[in-house]
Amino acid sequence: MTFAATILTLYPEMFPGPLRLSLAGRALEEQRWSLDTIQIRDFSQDKHRTVDDTPAGGGAGMVLKADVLAAAVDHARMLQPKTPILAMTPRGKPITQQRIRELAAGPGVTILCGRFEGFDERLFEARPEIEQVSLADVVLSGGEPAALAILDACIRLLPGVMGAPDSGAEESFEEGLLEYPQYTRPQEWEGRTIPEVLRSGDHAKIAAWRKARSEEDTRLRRPDLWERHGGDPVQPASGAQREEEG
Amino acid sequence: MTFAATILTLYPEMFPGPLRLSLAGRALEEQRWSLDTIQIRDFSQDKHRTVDDTPAGGGAGMVLKADVLAAAVDHARMLQPKTPILAMTPRGKPITQQRIRELAAGPGVTILCGRFEGFDERLFEARPEIEQVSLADVVLSGGEPAALAILDACIRLLPGVMGAPDSGAEESFEEGLLEYPQYTRPQEWEGRTIPEVLRSGDHAKIAAWRKARSEEDTRLRRPDLWERHGGDPVQPASGAQREEEG
Repeated sequence: MTFAATILTLYPEMFPGPLRLSLAGRALEEQRWSLDTIQIRDFSQDKHRTVDDTPAGGGAGMVLKADVLAAAVDHARMLQPKTPILAMTPRGKPITQQRIRELAAGPGVTILCGRFEGFDERLFEARPEIEQVSLADVVLSGGEPAALAILDACIRLLPGVMGAPDSGAEESFEEGLLEYPQYTRPQEWEGRTIPEVLRSGDHAKIAAWRKARSEEDTRLRRPDLWERHGGDPVQPASGAQREEEG
Repeated sequence: MTFAATILTLYPEMFPGPLRLSLAGRALEEQRWSLDTIQIRDFSQDKHRTVDDTPAGGGAGMVLKADVLAAAVDHARMLQPKTPILAMTPRGKPITQQRIRELAAGPGVTILCGRFEGFDERLFEARPEIEQVSLADVVLSGGEPAALAILDACIRLLPGVMGAPDSGAEESFEEGLLEYPQYTRPQEWEGRTIPEVLRSGDHAKIAAWRKARSEEDTRLRRPDLWERHGGDPVQPASGAQREEEG
């Protein structure tokens, strides 16, 4: 089954962009995912092909018109009736790895990208099926870079895309924790060695060390994730030691 | 002054990617920012140009070698001694709009993009100037899509890039709150009208309405931001009403 990605944008040339290469690029060639872009401007009703207008109540920038956006979204839904529709907006719910997993397991995703000051809010009132999603707590010039990141995150989870079948499971956020630190050859570099335990060959010990480091780093670096995870606090002494490194 | 962006990557062809177009593309032509890519593979020491190896202690995927990464980072620092160096990693500190503003006010940014399972941790011990940064709580196939988003967020804040000089200030996260909802013409669409207050012409009333909506939406949609903001709780009654919409 091909994962159907549909992007509504004023800049269709931005896609597939970086997803033309590497893992996502190979998967596109192998038709593990497909890409359709919809030019929002094609749904403008006037001869100037207007898509935006000044904000009601005043203020800087321009607002994307609800009528044009709704026409574009309705068209996308006709083409892909079964895929969830996301709108990239800093007012949205932060995307999570869990939602990415759900999307990747489904038929595809349709992503609406805004530019300028934002979307006319009535779009979301009139089309409640649109999920307002935010990628990060930073302001982008438009939704396109965020859409590329979300597609990338979905594509790597599609069946057959990643080399090792369990690569997807053992990573940051997959268990609600940060991933443990990684090491590789050379054994010694600039006077620094790989932690002894990783060279022990004792799989149970290695797993325990990784779990402990995963929990410890999450608690110290991401107290927000740690709290959500609801795990027991790690040793304060060891925690203090780690903090000096950060 | 030109903002100097330097990207260390195994896929230099991914840049400028979407940043070739629109706001960032125009700014690149106008030399408000510059882009240099550094191919990490060029810093491999062996004839096979190896950049990665299997994880110490076992596990799926490959780890980028500390010696190769450090050589590439050292080269970048020689080229741009004054720009902060970020490494995109899900183990990093979540990027904030405040950090983006700081970066945009500086001489530029150097971004190290990983692929595969991650970086050999010793890189960060040996080069403590590298800031480990995460874009969002999702796992990407590599740092490149995240780097594009971070560059985009910086570029739009560079002097002369955005049309309206105050567009940058009145947005989501700039005050630690979500932006208020926006509306534009038509006045009535699918039976939905623009809120009365925005058509009143009363600037003080409009500002008060926007502030209230900004606070209300932040409290309901992003309790995490609201808590950090530390504002007074909004009216419970009005809150309940808004929740029905979400």
